[in-house]
Amino acid sequence: MSEDAISRFPIAPRGELPPDLAERYDDVEERSGFLPNIHAALAWRPDEARAFFAMHDALMDKETPGLSKADRELIVVATSAGNDCLYCVVAHGAVARIRAKDPLIADQVATNYRQADITPRQRAMLDFALRVATRSATIEDEHLAELSHHGFDTDDVWDIGAIAALFAQSNRMAHLMALRPNPEFHLLGRVPRK
Amino acid sequence: MSEDAISRFPIAPRGELPPDLAERYDDVEERSGFLPNIHAALAWRPDEARAFFAMHDALMDKETPGLSKADRELIVVATSAGNDCLYCVVAHGAVARIRAKDPLIADQVATNYRQADITPRQRAMLDFALRVATRSATIEDEHLAELSHHGFDTDDVWDIGAIAALFAQSNRMAHLMALRPNPEFHLLGRVPRK
Amino acid sequence: MSEDAISRFPIAPRGELPPDLAERYDDVEERSGFLPNIHAALAWRPDEARAFFAMHDALMDKETPGLSKADRELIVVATSAGNDCLYCVVAHGAVARIRAKDPLIADQVATNYRQADITPRQRAMLDFALRVATRSATIEDEHLAELSHHGFDTDDVWDIGAIAALFAQSNRMAHLMALRPNPEFHLLGRVPRK
Amino acid sequence: MSEDAISRFPIAPRGELPPDLAERYDDVEERSGFLPNIHAALAWRPDEARAFFAMHDALMDKETPGLSKADRELIVVATSAGNDCLYCVVAHGAVARIRAKDPLIADQVATNYRQADITPRQRAMLDFALRVATRSATIEDEHLAELSHHGFDTDDVWDIGAIAALFAQSNRMAHLMALRPNPEFHLLGRVPRK
Amino acid sequence: MSEDAISRFPIAPRGELPPDLAERYDDVEERSGFLPNIHAALAWRPDEARAFFAMHDALMDKETPGLSKADRELIVVATSAGNDCLYCVVAHGAVARIRAKDPLIADQVATNYRQADITPRQRAMLDFALRVATRSATIEDEHLAELSHHGFDTDDVWDIGAIAALFAQSNRMAHLMALRPNPEFHLLGRVPRK
Amino acid sequence: MSEDAISRFPIAPRGELPPDLAERYDDVEERSGFLPNIHAALAWRPDEARAFFAMHDALMDKETPGLSKADRELIVVATSAGNDCLYCVVAHGAVARIRAKDPLIADQVATNYRQADITPRQRAMLDFALRVATRSATIEDEHLAELSHHGFDTDDVWDIGAIAALFAQSNRMAHLMALRPNPEFHLLGRVPRK
Repeated sequence: MSEDAISRFPIAPRGELPPDLAERYDDVEERSGFLPNIHAALAWRPDEARAFFAMHDALMDKETPGLSKADRELIVVATSAGNDCLYCVVAHGAVARIRAKDPLIADQVATNYRQADITPRQRAMLDFALRVATRSATIEDEHLAELSHHGFDTDDVWDIGAIAALFAQSNRMAHLMALRPNPEFHLLGRVPRK
Repeated sequence: MSEDAISRFPIAPRGELPPDLAERYDDVEERSGFLPNIHAALAWRPDEARAFFAMHDALMDKETPGLSKADRELIVVATSAGNDCLYCVVAHGAVARIRAKDPLIADQVATNYRQADITPRQRAMLDFALRVATRSATIEDEHLAELSHHGFDTDDVWDIGAIAALFAQSNRMAHLMALRPNPEFHLLGRVPRK
Repeated sequence: MSEDAISRFPIAPRGELPPDLAERYDDVEERSGFLPNIHAALAWRPDEARAFFAMHDALMDKETPGLSKADRELIVVATSAGNDCLYCVVAHGAVARIRAKDPLIADQVATNYRQADITPRQRAMLDFALRVATRSATIEDEHLAELSHHGFDTDDVWDIGAIAALFAQSNRMAHLMALRPNPEFHLLGRVPRK
Repeated sequence: MSEDAISRFPIAPRGELPPDLAERYDDVEERSGFLPNIHAALAWRPDEARAFFAMHDALMDKETPGLSKADRELIVVATSAGNDCLYCVVAHGAVARIRAKDPLIADQVATNYRQADITPRQRAMLDFALRVATRSATIEDEHLAELSHHGFDTDDVWDIGAIAALFAQSNRMAHLMALRPNPEFHLLGRVPRK
Repeated sequence: MSEDAISRFPIAPRGELPPDLAERYDDVEERSGFLPNIHAALAWRPDEARAFFAMHDALMDKETPGLSKADRELIVVATSAGNDCLYCVVAHGAVARIRAKDPLIADQVATNYRQADITPRQRAMLDFALRVATRSATIEDEHLAELSHHGFDTDDVWDIGAIAALFAQSNRMAHLMALRPNPEFHLLGRVPRK
Repeated sequence: MSEDAISRFPIAPRGELPPDLAERYDDVEERSGFLPNIHAALAWRPDEARAFFAMHDALMDKETPGLSKADRELIVVATSAGNDCLYCVVAHGAVARIRAKDPLIADQVATNYRQADITPRQRAMLDFALRVATRSATIEDEHLAELSHHGFDTDDVWDIGAIAALFAQSNRMAHLMALRPNPEFHLLGRVPRK
């Protein structure tokens, strides 16, 4: 593919999207100022795009007492870095910086979360997320108990694991597509918004 | 959890399912003779269940000239075995035996697909699927070209990769839940149907 | 080799076996109803065949208070699965089902023994066997002590380790030969004997 | 150590540095606007600090026809990312952005250099550097020949390997110290200099 | 166990050995000048000792046009080093030095056989042996064909693989026992025999 | 390169060395009886040679209450063996034998340090050194605390880590060069000095 291509697969013309996707994409673009490339890249498979966004929203567009939106993004950054996924690290790194209001946290978590400025509770969260991401066959009851010990309830534990699992899929799709992050993501959340 | 539990997480009572899931589950149970445990285990999170089944149907309930339903199941078995996922190997092993009308193929593909009775085209398909499943960061254009060389078109390549990616997620969810396969799966497709 | 070949190496004609092997093979075939392919495949090297069967009998044809024949077969299934050995997983999976009188146990142990319906004592046994099979240089006194803690005596510990070691050899021979399991094994122990 | 500590080891007071190091540090600080933490962290061992900077300058403060300063920094970023080294990825990522005049290149190379916007020649350079960094025992004549094929001469090949080797050391020192990158590095080279 | 123990398991008193083992051990001791510890360590399990020595003799006490005794020992050294087996590297390193009449070859092959002073044919032999030893599930027809290309016949290929497989077992037994090499081995073959 | 070459890179003629290196090399040769090949191989890059020897001397030519010269050499042998570095294992194995006055220790530590005749304190030292050498991103405060528990002070901990880091570099340089150990090293320290 050409160097500027955002995906190895066909990109559906924006004007030919099914109405529900068109509406969603317009909405995202208006809020973000640009349309993240994952949207454009999935559009040629509308049913899969809908299923992906539905799963994404159920797990990520959610703020609970036990797991903030910033925490959820840190799980994405840490596990996507464990999978060497350029798109997800850059795009969700940007969102993590914004949600956590911390310009340094995404680089720390992406490179070596053991050295990041996070709480012991967040460390336990990321340890578990990485286990789900990279060696899930070794999950045992004791690992869930460790999360309980840090105050995560049943719903939180599911969410941590399910987010890591969703991005196991998402990282692989990004690698399949050679999905290119929008340049805007690299700088987002690093400097104060005007 | 008790030895007979099918999941580490809550199981929604069958009678309390949202109508759309209730209908789907009844339908699956009628066709299969039993309800695969993945359905019961996901039901406490209806939105995620719907998203998972929507993605599953888009990729697996599909028969194309380039990729049969049996091929799709073999991808699931091979990649789930690569992830040591008990539920997915046993459940989709059963479906693969039935779809391929071959009582031995699932054990072969699950243990070492390099020794399975498959065509060179299927071998290339599984080599790529395993790359997606276990080291997707190393995917390069040449690997997609190798699939083209075996006659897979753009849609086929996407499907092979997307099925491997979906079960990367699914395997991790099964491990998170310690999801137990229904006993019926172990024997399905091994003996002639009455 | 042709698709139906049972080995990459020469198969000695049954009628030309040395008398001691001929007698053994006839005996095995009469008891089992068929001759497991490992016998046919090793016969062109009679001295090695004799040495292999002698070691096998010394470790596997043995029932002790601390280690049942079923336990011994589970060690073979778990470590052979760790080595991705088709012949050993399928053949000894069949024997394990029969010895343990459990149609599900072999699939569980072969795919992910951490999720199998086994006792904590058996879990410790398989943890140690897998260590011997896949990273034996890391064995330390504490690992043997852990087995003692579960009630295994000195002979048991040796047997667990020696069985894992024997199948480290056997798995590699099967891979060298591309040894094909007899079709009969796939179904053995899954349905009640007539 | 406290969250703000830059190292697990003692930090020599700036005013007590040996004159040669004091001069060097003042010079670096004047040119960069701040003193990179590696300087402060090594100062309690002046002989080692001198040896490290001497080796660093010999390999990095060098612009040759075959290997630009930007190329040298990309080798550092790619291999340090292979070692999950927070300090080196963040600090040399900044320098790489400046040297290459490209605000995106460091994030690309740090996350998955296979997807970075680099030339085939640079790709061969990074493939070799990663081999040196992560599996140097497998280096064979053919790998050096591959570099020659891309136009790297004997000096270039040595430099690529020697830079990867130097940062194998440096990454390990940073991990030993839990060396913290200066916050300034995270933003450097991402926005136009005023 | 005490620091000087040669095994974690019981050592049968020399005077209580079965006659056939006693005779063999006397013979070995007379020829070598000392009794290699593997003999003493296996003696408490006479049937297993006999089976092991029978397999060992069938594969190692053999000189064929395609595979010299020195070559056979190099296979043991290379694969045992791949498994980090102290006893086998030291004991068979000594035998390899003697058989190959080369005081340096064992250290080379044990540390990194890619740098050893061996022929391309021997290199192919060791590449295959290491594949058998460390990732035998990946053996394919092409790897055997590569050996043929170097002039190894069917018997040679079997022997190379079978020796690697035998020492996969032997290395694991040595690790299980924490088998200690006789001090004599360390120097054997390094200086001219008087 | 020819079989007898000591490096893949140019060897500076001894008579053309800069005076400081010439003096150092003469001195080393006089004390050792031969010039270790690392000297000859680095000489074509005088600045890098000087920096390497300066770092080497600062960490290795040092005897402290907490870390003897023999201990320092054992760290080099263990970590170089972890990296499969022929030159460093053979050359520093010789020095370790001499410093420790033990003809067996280097072979033990090089093959599997878990089985070596070392104290628990030395075992903790090598465990940490190997962590630095092979997975330094996982170093946490607890690992340094473990060393303190064994009586190593802050300077000792730094030295253990810094030696492992220096040889991470040195091993990679040796692999880059295919550096050949001087034959003399293989026997040094194995037999009493005349």
